[in-house]
Amino acid sequence: MNIDLNCDMGESYGNFKMGNDEAVFPYITSCNIACGFHGGDPIHIEKTIQLAIHHGVKMGAHPSYPDLGGFGRRKMVIPLKELTSIVKYQVAALKGLVESYGEKLHYVKPHGALYNSMADNREEAASVMEGIREIDPFLIVMGLAGSEMEQIAQEKEIPFVAEAFADRQYLSNGRLMPRSRKGSVIHDPEKAAEQVLHIAREGKVKDDQGNRIQLNAQTICIHGDNPGAVNILQAIHQKLAQAQVQIRSFVI
Amino acid sequence: MNIDLNCDMGESYGNFKMGNDEAVFPYITSCNIACGFHGGDPIHIEKTIQLAIHHGVKMGAHPSYPDLGGFGRRKMVIPLKELTSIVKYQVAALKGLVESYGEKLHYVKPHGALYNSMADNREEAASVMEGIREIDPFLIVMGLAGSEMEQIAQEKEIPFVAEAFADRQYLSNGRLMPRSRKGSVIHDPEKAAEQVLHIAREGKVKDDQGNRIQLNAQTICIHGDNPGAVNILQAIHQKLAQAQVQIRSFVI
Amino acid sequence: MNIDLNCDMGESYGNFKMGNDEAVFPYITSCNIACGFHGGDPIHIEKTIQLAIHHGVKMGAHPSYPDLGGFGRRKMVIPLKELTSIVKYQVAALKGLVESYGEKLHYVKPHGALYNSMADNREEAASVMEGIREIDPFLIVMGLAGSEMEQIAQEKEIPFVAEAFADRQYLSNGRLMPRSRKGSVIHDPEKAAEQVLHIAREGKVKDDQGNRIQLNAQTICIHGDNPGAVNILQAIHQKLAQAQVQIRSFVI
Amino acid sequence: MNIDLNCDMGESYGNFKMGNDEAVFPYITSCNIACGFHGGDPIHIEKTIQLAIHHGVKMGAHPSYPDLGGFGRRKMVIPLKELTSIVKYQVAALKGLVESYGEKLHYVKPHGALYNSMADNREEAASVMEGIREIDPFLIVMGLAGSEMEQIAQEKEIPFVAEAFADRQYLSNGRLMPRSRKGSVIHDPEKAAEQVLHIAREGKVKDDQGNRIQLNAQTICIHGDNPGAVNILQAIHQKLAQAQVQIRSFVI
Repeated sequence: MNIDLNCDMGESYGNFKMGNDEAVFPYITSCNIACGFHGGDPIHIEKTIQLAIHHGVKMGAHPSYPDLGGFGRRKMVIPLKELTSIVKYQVAALKGLVESYGEKLHYVKPHGALYNSMADNREEAASVMEGIREIDPFLIVMGLAGSEMEQIAQEKEIPFVAEAFADRQYLSNGRLMPRSRKGSVIHDPEKAAEQVLHIAREGKVKDDQGNRIQLNAQTICIHGDNPGAVNILQAIHQKLAQAQVQIRSFVI
Repeated sequence: MNIDLNCDMGESYGNFKMGNDEAVFPYITSCNIACGFHGGDPIHIEKTIQLAIHHGVKMGAHPSYPDLGGFGRRKMVIPLKELTSIVKYQVAALKGLVESYGEKLHYVKPHGALYNSMADNREEAASVMEGIREIDPFLIVMGLAGSEMEQIAQEKEIPFVAEAFADRQYLSNGRLMPRSRKGSVIHDPEKAAEQVLHIAREGKVKDDQGNRIQLNAQTICIHGDNPGAVNILQAIHQKLAQAQVQIRSFVI
Repeated sequence: MNIDLNCDMGESYGNFKMGNDEAVFPYITSCNIACGFHGGDPIHIEKTIQLAIHHGVKMGAHPSYPDLGGFGRRKMVIPLKELTSIVKYQVAALKGLVESYGEKLHYVKPHGALYNSMADNREEAASVMEGIREIDPFLIVMGLAGSEMEQIAQEKEIPFVAEAFADRQYLSNGRLMPRSRKGSVIHDPEKAAEQVLHIAREGKVKDDQGNRIQLNAQTICIHGDNPGAVNILQAIHQKLAQAQVQIRSFVI
Repeated sequence: MNIDLNCDMGESYGNFKMGNDEAVFPYITSCNIACGFHGGDPIHIEKTIQLAIHHGVKMGAHPSYPDLGGFGRRKMVIPLKELTSIVKYQVAALKGLVESYGEKLHYVKPHGALYNSMADNREEAASVMEGIREIDPFLIVMGLAGSEMEQIAQEKEIPFVAEAFADRQYLSNGRLMPRSRKGSVIHDPEKAAEQVLHIAREGKVKDDQGNRIQLNAQTICIHGDNPGAVNILQAIHQKLAQAQVQIRSFVI
């Protein structure tokens, strides 16, 4: 019994610092490295690769809409073919940089508004995921558990890892409660750790009505820009150790 | 006896069209594809790769200072380590995109102000060229004949191809006459073709005093944004065919 | 009886040339000057101001979503307050540059996807138009005839100029036929000129069923990036001269 | 007897936070507001204007080379005319935004590499300062005491305010000790406060040899991104209060 912990990394840009990468790295098993389109310039990408290697953390590319000003969190309506090129470019850049260190890029997790858009939009998910496969057919795609992305991956036999969230409240339909609603974010490290344990051990999560619903996920997303990220991570490590659930990468 | 003809390609950006790629492709043997930092967004890069494959033209990456507003022609003072990352990122992106078509990226030619800066600056040339080698040790670097880049390539045993210009007047020291001086640009296709022939057949070029000086180059740069580019290319093809000098890629 | 002719201008960016400004300026009475967010860097903006002054053409700001890569034609979902700031910034920059020549900025016409979004979206139109008024209460807003923008302008007593199109087919509901449909763009200069004449003289336009529908507009948009723009403009001038309809700015 | 304290403000960009504006505002009398080219997007600019008004702090524009990735700290070689346009654009944007709040933009302080370049380069200083005057002849230019900027300002009768630094060691020629040298930055708040007092009261500063040299400055720059900025500011306030030197804006 085991689970992966992933976190967005390398999002600093020039003199603009983002996140607390060095503090978070010891606690995670997969890192989603920004590719320059919402954050992450080349020198910060390289520093993040070096940190990932140092900590033995598996690396993924974290491509975005081209939107530095909006940190990739603004939905953009881009023709599918062009969007696919935009993602291919970013994944290719990351892959080449990682390989320049003799290491391997294992997966791709879309960022922000692109992640949400692909979760709900079959066509967008299909086109972008085929583009990722063109760059490297062994790349695993990471996306929302139960989303269109997961469906497309099955249909197209694209390797896929389903993701759940430690610090977000789920609704009865298995979707996340919107951030705008009260109670959508779990701040208590103990509660977040418990949610992770349930997902890892039983493939279930408590919804906002208190019912347990199915949630199959192999990796848990931690929000590194959250000031309490390290506390949550420590609580998860402790809780899972007690339950003898191993924290380890989904890469075999 | 043979020579390569190279041209900058894929520099269009979004709705901004640059150059006349489709007209030029039939006449060249190597294309330097923009990487997004001075021109060339992902979709135009992919279209250019498709054109290059269609025309059987060898592909190189054409990285730049990060300066879309200045088309990479403005000198920027960037710390060496960061500049090297910037170039690695661009080369990696191009390499991955080219390989997604089952093709090979053969070489790298720095663009604009970066090209000029590396021609004169040992440290910058060395750092950037080592970065290129980290991405792929088989990548050939293309640079100014007789420059610091050529010197560094020899010392570090980095594969190198020396470049000369069809339409630029040379000085007696083997350097190009600055564009600001009268007579620096050769507009007559016939004269440009003759200059290419001399370089290809004798490894010599006429300087501004009328003397022949040594100039060892394996490739000739054609400026594709020049409206007369196709005329010059046709004149070169005709002149070289008459002299039985073959136009072919430096890639074996 | 009179009508204004407006055209987007100053959209070139660095080495990327856009449009054919110098050929179009003699035929128009209002120019929408790009503000740097979809095209138009500071030096091209200044050159365009100089051209406008030279040709006696009234100047407007042409703000956009922040999207150079998509030329402002991609819908972006931006919080209203932030979007309003983005437009205020652009209008302020244009206003200051125009005033540095001792001239006056007369109006603002939103660009591309922002124009379309404001035409249909009350809230977005209201917020952005209030922002424009904060910069200068005398600024006239130019927008689609019959749109939400026109409605908001009436309600808020913001000076407004309604725009129609010379080269686009109208539907029976007064909206433009989508570009994706056959027959949506009028290529024949004679037909375009006739459409302008009907709008100017009768406040009517023929819809795709051949019926005449109401269309109150004080200005006609000409697409300057259209290679046939000058031909259309010449046909309009001729047709309107024959009908003794004056082409002149809506600025009194 | 009085002195002004200025600080760079509004440099945050999208989700990228920079500086500690809210903590610093209570202690300063002038704020240099980023204009979007090295930091500072429109919404952060507006928020900064609101803060400045709230704290009664005078506002200046803080234009930069167009270099978000390098935070405006990288020297760029840009033709003078284009550079002047770039600065005019930024100053115009700031001026318009400030005036939309019914307030006044009082001054312009060039940022980073542009500041340094203008301090040493007569031609660049002259061209840019004339551009600023074109936007508004009442704008005061803020620049390094004893620099080419100060000289040009005198010659051209452009209003000028000379700046000194609280936390930087001066050399015997009146220039700043380069940051690369040991002892170039003064970390002790007490020492920094003393340096400010000497400048304010006597127009003198202790150089690295311990000698007092002339230094006429009307404003002191505080580095807000320095984590100890508030401590230094508090020490300055205390020291100057004891010496009955008033901290107040140079704007009359």
